[in-house]
Amino acid sequence: MTATDTLLPALRAALGPAGLVTDPDQIGSYLTDWRGAWSGAAAAVVRPGSTAEVAAVLRLCRDAGVAVVPQGGNTGLCGGAVPDASGRQVVLSLGRMRRVRELDPANQTITVEAGAVLQSVQEAAAAAGRLFPLSLGSEGSATIGGTLATNAGGTAVLRYGTMRDLVLGLEVVLPDGRVWHGLRGLRKDNTGYDLKHLFVGAEGTLGVITAAVLKLFPAVRSRATAWVALPGPAAAVELIEVVRALAGDRLTGFEVMSRQSVAFVLAHAAGVRDPFPAPHPWYALVELSDTLPGAGLAEVLETALGEAFDRDLARDAVIGSGSAQVASLWALREGISEAQNAEGPSLKHDVTVPVSRIPEFVERTDRALAAALPGIRVVAYGHVGDGNLHYNLSKPVGSADAAFRARADELARVVYDSTAAFAGSISAEHGIGQAKRDLLADYEDPLELELMRGVKALLDPAGLMNPGKVLPAG
Amino acid sequence: MTATDTLLPALRAALGPAGLVTDPDQIGSYLTDWRGAWSGAAAAVVRPGSTAEVAAVLRLCRDAGVAVVPQGGNTGLCGGAVPDASGRQVVLSLGRMRRVRELDPANQTITVEAGAVLQSVQEAAAAAGRLFPLSLGSEGSATIGGTLATNAGGTAVLRYGTMRDLVLGLEVVLPDGRVWHGLRGLRKDNTGYDLKHLFVGAEGTLGVITAAVLKLFPAVRSRATAWVALPGPAAAVELIEVVRALAGDRLTGFEVMSRQSVAFVLAHAAGVRDPFPAPHPWYALVELSDTLPGAGLAEVLETALGEAFDRDLARDAVIGSGSAQVASLWALREGISEAQNAEGPSLKHDVTVPVSRIPEFVERTDRALAAALPGIRVVAYGHVGDGNLHYNLSKPVGSADAAFRARADELARVVYDSTAAFAGSISAEHGIGQAKRDLLADYEDPLELELMRGVKALLDPAGLMNPGKVLPAG
Repeated sequence: MTATDTLLPALRAALGPAGLVTDPDQIGSYLTDWRGAWSGAAAAVVRPGSTAEVAAVLRLCRDAGVAVVPQGGNTGLCGGAVPDASGRQVVLSLGRMRRVRELDPANQTITVEAGAVLQSVQEAAAAAGRLFPLSLGSEGSATIGGTLATNAGGTAVLRYGTMRDLVLGLEVVLPDGRVWHGLRGLRKDNTGYDLKHLFVGAEGTLGVITAAVLKLFPAVRSRATAWVALPGPAAAVELIEVVRALAGDRLTGFEVMSRQSVAFVLAHAAGVRDPFPAPHPWYALVELSDTLPGAGLAEVLETALGEAFDRDLARDAVIGSGSAQVASLWALREGISEAQNAEGPSLKHDVTVPVSRIPEFVERTDRALAAALPGIRVVAYGHVGDGNLHYNLSKPVGSADAAFRARADELARVVYDSTAAFAGSISAEHGIGQAKRDLLADYEDPLELELMRGVKALLDPAGLMNPGKVLPAG
Repeated sequence: MTATDTLLPALRAALGPAGLVTDPDQIGSYLTDWRGAWSGAAAAVVRPGSTAEVAAVLRLCRDAGVAVVPQGGNTGLCGGAVPDASGRQVVLSLGRMRRVRELDPANQTITVEAGAVLQSVQEAAAAAGRLFPLSLGSEGSATIGGTLATNAGGTAVLRYGTMRDLVLGLEVVLPDGRVWHGLRGLRKDNTGYDLKHLFVGAEGTLGVITAAVLKLFPAVRSRATAWVALPGPAAAVELIEVVRALAGDRLTGFEVMSRQSVAFVLAHAAGVRDPFPAPHPWYALVELSDTLPGAGLAEVLETALGEAFDRDLARDAVIGSGSAQVASLWALREGISEAQNAEGPSLKHDVTVPVSRIPEFVERTDRALAAALPGIRVVAYGHVGDGNLHYNLSKPVGSADAAFRARADELARVVYDSTAAFAGSISAEHGIGQAKRDLLADYEDPLELELMRGVKALLDPAGLMNPGKVLPAG
């Protein structure tokens, strides 16, 4: 008689048939992440319909000594929401908890349950004439709970920040089943230590976020987008300066891409074309937005680009006119990840360095990678306004996939060592999960790891909340 | 031979003569806060000149079992930086650590030591064509360390957030003298639990912040300010909506004041006048700003105010033209606290409620206060865009100061009970310190207090960091 033999009937009794999934045919989608990169097994998948049911699950699992893996949309990139291979863990899906509990326009807040899909929250805000700014490729599946647990970022961080910046309050079920009612909608609250920031970015290792109060912003009613050819990454950093000095908060997006990145999209994506007659070393996608209709953003862009041309920060530029052209410009950016897959295995690295260090970082890292593997193709792109680069690698033309995959760890070290040398972060916005857990031991300050372990022991003494994620062993 | 008999020579040896103050003539200013509201005694005041010296102080004090009270500009309002009466505590002033370590314009960051005065950081940012937005009445004395320890807010929170929102990284000396090097200048960093938010707002009870990386913003080059007469607080909440919908992020200030507040300023402040011929129940001071020169902000204000008049949200309005007139409008807001002192004792309460609940909160709280003490004069004003009201009280005309002071606790309960009834916070931006410590036991969720005590025990097991502050006894 194992722990789960007694646990499963108790869970069924607490949650009802809709709350417990054990059928192998139905359980599969909870055991593998959306990319198929991470797989595990589970004793069961529970789908509680309320905070009280989440609390019941955690109490029962704690009493049975069974580990719990919280899961949102399962769109994470580091395996943080996938159970281990033991088959003894319980996956806790928040998928049934997706209510908008309250939308308070005057307070500029929306209170939603953790299982609410990001896009549905964007839509609820828009219906109230508001903006919820977090925007991700996976927003049609990613949940609020998942984006909080991983402190998701995306393409609007430059202006609006990450999920950590967008949350005012949390409701959290602690590992012992007690509920912390921190669901406050206050912009100023200095009554002791801030606990919510412990749970944001903790990837479900300290408790289960069941609801959140999120900030809303005024709706955007003007937008202007430019695609700019750059001589190199140094120009990108200077161009941000030029645009920001004029546009201020109107600057809501500043994405950069190496030529290699764009070349892959042009080669493999449908219905895209190079806006310029000649290739250029780097490109920037600059987006301004404003709450005023007819805010003259195109003129602001033109003024900024004029200065950029004078200073040779830009070699060519087009300002998108009409939603179709703007969409075609964004397609060049958003198509990169998929296009790269057509070139064989893609080794992904999501790093941040201080914005001012980006040019030096790119030059040194590219050189080190070329030395480690001549012919390697670096697909560098990202949210340069935040210092966040997706530093992805493709194999040399004509080489074997297996040989390239075999060198993944070694090449990752090249990227991460360079990141560390520039006082950067080896996980900008994807989190740690399983993928980077052991790297933390090498790249994180030992004192910081010690403090994190202390926090883990304080909140999850039994070590049953998403074990094996975030914190390295030992 | 007491602990301090051996500690003081050790401190002198570690810090040199400039680092240790025991002379009664020099020590006084460290033992009483700037308002003279809180006083204590101390075995010594230490003034370390470096992070290493702060570490040495904490090691020596820990070994001697002597408590340490970190202190910045000593401008706090809740006694958080003032030692107790025992004369056994050591005050640790960061006043000698005021260097700007780095200003990185491209990364939009400034790295400063904890003792740097807020105004000097604003000036360093301005000299680099940047804005550091935190703005307080005490900015000429308040330090970066103090504003971080109390998560200071001020008049620009509506747009830029509190210190918690403005900090990217911290350097902290832990109670055992070890240094946490969390001085990162990254806008995206998801490598495990976020520790810095534990120290922000902890009022020196978990460690000593010695340096910080702060966010900078583009310099503001357009500004427009309006003084608006309102029929009441409900109109203020609707007026924010009207202005924000048009101005978006240009809305950087939205202060409200009751007529009573303004009447005190008009009665007691020099060189101020009522901008309007007739009195009105409430007033709003609305400020828009923009990074673009000639951004047409006055026109945006006029459009918004036109709509406000149509909807009877505004009864009169003046748009300040020229810095002199704008300053005279701000003088009506900034003179309130001092003017109130001319009317006898001022019982101050710094609370937040959700913006949408403010009208109901004001009505109910005023009624409850009038019932508790007929003739009481409520001086309500604050940063209504954040839901933050300074709910200050003056005695009935002609009544005795002593009788009024004697009822301070009772009247505070009226304000805080009402605040709690509206899911608000009993400390919006002033923190807890000694002043509100025991109130936390009554108004904070017991589970939240338990978690805070766990955090305290984790980081300060010996309980020597600013004991008696923030956390209630027991």
